[in-house]
Amino acid sequence: MERHFDQELDDLKQALLRMASIAEQNVAQALKALVQRDNSLAAKVDEEDNLLDALQIEIDDRAIKLLALRQPTARDLRLLTMAMKISTDLERIGDEAVNISHRAQELNQEPLLKPLVDIPRMAELAQSMIRDALDAFVYEKPDGAREIIQRDEKVDQLNHQLHRELTSFMVEDPHTITRCLNLMSVAHNLERIADHATNIAEEIVYLYEARDIRHQHE
Amino acid sequence: MERHFDQELDDLKQALLRMASIAEQNVAQALKALVQRDNSLAAKVDEEDNLLDALQIEIDDRAIKLLALRQPTARDLRLLTMAMKISTDLERIGDEAVNISHRAQELNQEPLLKPLVDIPRMAELAQSMIRDALDAFVYEKPDGAREIIQRDEKVDQLNHQLHRELTSFMVEDPHTITRCLNLMSVAHNLERIADHATNIAEEIVYLYEARDIRHQHE
Repeated sequence: MERHFDQELDDLKQALLRMASIAEQNVAQALKALVQRDNSLAAKVDEEDNLLDALQIEIDDRAIKLLALRQPTARDLRLLTMAMKISTDLERIGDEAVNISHRAQELNQEPLLKPLVDIPRMAELAQSMIRDALDAFVYEKPDGAREIIQRDEKVDQLNHQLHRELTSFMVEDPHTITRCLNLMSVAHNLERIADHATNIAEEIVYLYEARDIRHQHE
Repeated sequence: MERHFDQELDDLKQALLRMASIAEQNVAQALKALVQRDNSLAAKVDEEDNLLDALQIEIDDRAIKLLALRQPTARDLRLLTMAMKISTDLERIGDEAVNISHRAQELNQEPLLKPLVDIPRMAELAQSMIRDALDAFVYEKPDGAREIIQRDEKVDQLNHQLHRELTSFMVEDPHTITRCLNLMSVAHNLERIADHATNIAEEIVYLYEARDIRHQHE
């Protein structure tokens, strides 16, 4: 029984959406593990990451099979090639969430350095970028995707600001060094998550406008 | 005048090889800027990186056009999809080289912390991984690609070792903090370059064996 191509493309989209929602959830969970100092949440991020790995392999496999069997052109072709790219970025977002959860487990072994302000802010921004990229994908809104790319700079700024602040902390009190390094790592991971969300946004613009806008905002 | 598909595939391979050789050269150049304390070399890495960005866009564009026009199957299809993945990894390797060159420029403003030993070793390993991935690609040797993946662990080990060592330095003498942070960054960039070389190796195994080996060695 042969299924309709439209249905197959729709299944692929669903798999991508599932992957995106797990990736976003894992970022949220890793942050919660950090803010609430809860190691059990951190361990869950590791587990869920296996799902992302499996979905990445599944999406690539489906996309390549459909390219071979259906020989699509125009937008369908762009959907299949972009699906492979988007799933790679989502898988990497998952890896960064795992890194954050490992840093959280280390940070949870020592007293809190200071109330976390900038990191939750960065995380909120990064998560909103993933969420809105999904929206732009589902509702076919390349303009929404373009708007996401603007937000990446804010995340970069927060990362630099935090880097400077934490460096001063370390200089003033070497006892804080390990904690500061872990917090710097987390900020860096969030900055990378925002980069991947930016990539996804660019991929969505390409999907719906057939225009490659990479390397223009650098 | 229509050209032969084989010729078009060969042109795409040549573009990939050109990209790989620039990426490897940029890593070497960034390291030289660090080891020889030469800012002019660092600036050159920035320039050359634009070439990588342009090649990435060109390779994707060619691959998608060939997918649409030639509707390839089997190995030709895998070559086109993997070309898009390999070029992404090469472009990221270039970005990491740019990061290293920026860290080198900062490090060159202060006295040398200590003779660099582990970082050049990591760089040599990472560069050999890129070079051998190219070889595996050109000579169609998936076994060679599999062997590269083993080396990634060694790079990770060196990175962790250096991280611990530099942390002790910082604790003992807070005046070294900025330099240690920059060196940690460089080590981290090299570790990521090795990760991208690993991705490329996995992509080459898929190209020649139609087998997806990702997430098996984790």
